[in-house]
Amino acid sequence: MFDRLLLPDLRELLETSDTEGLREFCEALHPAVVAEVLGRLDSIEVWRVLSSCSPETRVSIFQHLELPRQEELARELDRGQLSKLIEEMAPDDRVDLLSRLSEERVQTLLPLIAQAERNDIQRLLSLPEGSTGSIMTTEYASLRAEITVGEAIDQLRSQAPNRETIYYIYVIDESRELRGVVSLRELILAQPKTPLKDLIFTEPIAVRVGDDQETTAQTLARLDLIAVPVVDDHNHLVGIVTHDDVMDVLQEEATEDAYLQGAVGTLEDSYLQTPLITLAWKRGIWLMFLSIVALVTAEVLNRYEHVSRAYAWMVLFLPLVLASGGNAGSQSATLIIRTLALGSLSREENLRMAWREFLVGLTLGGVLAAIGYSAALIWFGLTIPQACVVAFTVLLVVVMGTVCGAALPILFRRLGMDPALMSNPLIAALVDVLGVVIYYSVAIFALGAIK
Amino acid sequence: MFDRLLLPDLRELLETSDTEGLREFCEALHPAVVAEVLGRLDSIEVWRVLSSCSPETRVSIFQHLELPRQEELARELDRGQLSKLIEEMAPDDRVDLLSRLSEERVQTLLPLIAQAERNDIQRLLSLPEGSTGSIMTTEYASLRAEITVGEAIDQLRSQAPNRETIYYIYVIDESRELRGVVSLRELILAQPKTPLKDLIFTEPIAVRVGDDQETTAQTLARLDLIAVPVVDDHNHLVGIVTHDDVMDVLQEEATEDAYLQGAVGTLEDSYLQTPLITLAWKRGIWLMFLSIVALVTAEVLNRYEHVSRAYAWMVLFLPLVLASGGNAGSQSATLIIRTLALGSLSREENLRMAWREFLVGLTLGGVLAAIGYSAALIWFGLTIPQACVVAFTVLLVVVMGTVCGAALPILFRRLGMDPALMSNPLIAALVDVLGVVIYYSVAIFALGAIK
Repeated sequence: MFDRLLLPDLRELLETSDTEGLREFCEALHPAVVAEVLGRLDSIEVWRVLSSCSPETRVSIFQHLELPRQEELARELDRGQLSKLIEEMAPDDRVDLLSRLSEERVQTLLPLIAQAERNDIQRLLSLPEGSTGSIMTTEYASLRAEITVGEAIDQLRSQAPNRETIYYIYVIDESRELRGVVSLRELILAQPKTPLKDLIFTEPIAVRVGDDQETTAQTLARLDLIAVPVVDDHNHLVGIVTHDDVMDVLQEEATEDAYLQGAVGTLEDSYLQTPLITLAWKRGIWLMFLSIVALVTAEVLNRYEHVSRAYAWMVLFLPLVLASGGNAGSQSATLIIRTLALGSLSREENLRMAWREFLVGLTLGGVLAAIGYSAALIWFGLTIPQACVVAFTVLLVVVMGTVCGAALPILFRRLGMDPALMSNPLIAALVDVLGVVIYYSVAIFALGAIK
Repeated sequence: MFDRLLLPDLRELLETSDTEGLREFCEALHPAVVAEVLGRLDSIEVWRVLSSCSPETRVSIFQHLELPRQEELARELDRGQLSKLIEEMAPDDRVDLLSRLSEERVQTLLPLIAQAERNDIQRLLSLPEGSTGSIMTTEYASLRAEITVGEAIDQLRSQAPNRETIYYIYVIDESRELRGVVSLRELILAQPKTPLKDLIFTEPIAVRVGDDQETTAQTLARLDLIAVPVVDDHNHLVGIVTHDDVMDVLQEEATEDAYLQGAVGTLEDSYLQTPLITLAWKRGIWLMFLSIVALVTAEVLNRYEHVSRAYAWMVLFLPLVLASGGNAGSQSATLIIRTLALGSLSREENLRMAWREFLVGLTLGGVLAAIGYSAALIWFGLTIPQACVVAFTVLLVVVMGTVCGAALPILFRRLGMDPALMSNPLIAALVDVLGVVIYYSVAIFALGAIK
C-alpha cells in the first residue's frame, strides 16, 4: 500500500549513498511501513538501509520483514552481526527466525548470545510448533501484590523499556504462580496510595503453554483482550500471547482452511514466496488422490456400460448429476467446516446442523430437480419417464451431497482430525461415485433392467 | 468452552432466585464469559440474570452477547429499559444493534436518549455499512500538544472512565485536526515535567472514515497496532478503530470468503442462527446458476452425440476429465483469491502469478496425464491411441483449468468486483464446458471425424 509511494524516495537515497537520509527515512516511519518498502529491494540493499539506522530501529524494522526475507538476510550476515541482531529481537520473533535456520547455524550462533537470552531461546525452541508456547513472548510485565499503586507504576517504569506490553500487568507470588491481573488503565485511574491488592482481578483467564495456538487465539479474540497470560501445568506464569500475534495466527489459520477447502496443502510462506516445486507438490498430491477417485467413478460407469448403451441420452445429464451433488456437498462442507473452526459445538448442535442440512438438501434438491425436469423435457426433448429419472436422480443426489458434506467434517472432528481436510473437491469426488450409482440405479428401476 | 462448565451453576442460581448469587456470578467473571454462558439460556432468563447486576456490568455483558441475541432481547424490553441500556453502550456496539432494529423502533427510542449520545448515534448510523466509519468508536482519548507529561496523565485520568482505550492518545489542534499520537507507555516512561511535544510521533498512520473496513483491518493488523485513528477528508479526527473490532472484521471477511469459495452467499449471522429459508436461498441461487452451466455442458455433449456413439469408451473418462480441470482450477482460484485478499498486488505480481500458475498447470497436467494414460491402458484396457486421447485431454484441461482459475479472479479484481465471487464450483462449472469441448476435439483430431 505504502510501498509503491515510498520506493522511489528510498531508491534515490540508496543511489546517492545518503546515509543520513536513510537513517531519517527509517526513523520517521512506522517500522512495519519501512519493512514493507524494503520488501521490494534485494537483500544487499536491505542490509545497506538497515546498517544506516540505530540498533533499536534496525531490530524493529527487521522484525517486521517477512520470515523468508529475514531468513535470506540471516544467511548473508556474519555470525557476529546476526547474533547481535538476534539478541535484541523480541523472544517470539527471534524463535520464529531461528526455527527456520539450520541446526548447525543455530549452534554456531548460540555461544555468541548472552546467557539469559540463550536460555530463553532454548526453552522456546523446544516447544512444539502450533502450541501456544510457540507464539508467546517471555517479555511481560509482572508485579507482586503487596505494594501500592504508586510503587507499581514506579516498578513498571523500570520494566517498560523491554516489555512487549505494559498495558496488562500480571500479579505473581514468590513461586511465580499467577495470582491475578491489573490493567494500566486501572493503575492510572487509582490513587497512588491505594494498595495494588484492591485493584487486582483475581480470576484472570489464562491459557496453557501446550494449548493449541488456534484455541488461544480464539479465546483472546472472543474476550477482546490485548494479551492473555500463559501458564504451565502448575499455574506458573511463563509468558504472554499478544493481540498482534493472535491476528497473525487467525489470518494463518484462515489461509490454511481456505487452501484446504480448495484442496491445496498448507504452505509455510505466502503464495508468491513459495517455490514452484513446493506448490506443485502441495497441489499434486491432492490432485493425484482425486484422480484415483475419478477413476473409481469411471469403473462404476464401466459396470453400467450396458445401460449407457441402451440409454445413450443418460450421458448428457451426467455433468448435471455430478455437479448438483458435488456443489451441494461443497456448500454443506463449507458451512460446517467454518462453523466448527469458529468454536466447538455440543453434540446436540452437531445433530441440529446435520438435520438442518438434510432439510435444506430436500428443498434445494426439489428446486434443482424441477429445473432438471423442465430442461430434459423442453430443452433436450426427452420423454416424461426419462425426465423423471433425471429429476429424481438430482433430488437424491443433492440430498446425499448435503448429508455427506455435513456429516464427513463432523465425523473427522470426532475422530480428532482436522474437519477442513474434507475439501470441496474431495467431497465432490466422493459424491460423484455415489451419484453415478444413484443415477443408473434410478434409471434401471424406472425404465427397466437391461440384460 | 466455558459455557458448559458454568451453566449448571447459573441454572441453580436462577432456580433458587438467588439474586445476590447471580450478581456475584456476573461480577466475578469476564463479561465475555458470562455472555457465552447466557447464550445457552432463553431471553427471559437472560434478562433475569442481567437485571440482578449493576448497570455497568449489565451493559458490558450485553455488549458481548451475539447480535441476534441482543436484537431478541431488545424486542422484549420496554422503551425505558432499552433506551437506558443503549445510552450506556459503547458507540460502535450500540450502532450495530440499532442498525438491526426497525426504523420506527429507533425513532421511538431516540427521544429518550441524551442529546450528546443521540447526535453521535445519528452520525454513526448514517455511515455506509462496510466502511471504516461503521466499525469505529467515537470514545477515544485526545490531548492538546501544549502541555507537560504530568498534565497529560492528569487529563487522561479524567477521560479514562469512558474511553475505549487510553493506551494510544491522539494529539489534536483547536480544529480537531490530527497532529500526532503518543502511547501511554511513553507517558509512563517520561518525566512528568517533559513537554508532551517531545514525545509525539507526528506521522501517525490514519485511515479515512470512508475507507473499506477490510483495508483498515489489514492496516492495523500489519502494523501491530492496538488502535488506528480515523479522520475525515480534512484530516479531522472523528474516531478510532480498535484491535478487537478489527479481529471481528478479519474473522467475518474470512468467513465470507470461505462461504463464497464454497458458493454460498454471505450470511449476516452465524450458521446456526440463520433461518433455514435464508440458508436455502443463499445456496439455491448459486446452485440454480451452476445447474444452468451444467446444462450448457449437456448441450455441448449433445452436439457431439455422434462421437459418443462411435467412441462409447469416452464416457468412462468424462468424470476424470471434468474433475481434473475443475480441481486444478479450484486450486488456482483458491490460491489467487486468498493472495488478493491478504493485500493488493502490482501489475507485475499479477502477471507473475498467472505465469506461475501456467507452469504449475503444465507440471500437474503432465503428472495427471501419465496417471490417466496408465489407467486407460492397464485398468480399462483401451488401445494406445485411445489412451493418448485421455492423456492429452487431461494435460490440456489441467492447464486450461489453472489458467482460468488464476485469470478469472484477477480479471474480477480489475473490474472492481470481489475476486472471491469466482467460487470453486463456478470455476469448475466453467471449466467443465471447455473440458468437454477439448475432450471431443482431441478425440476427433486423433481418431478421425465421424459423420
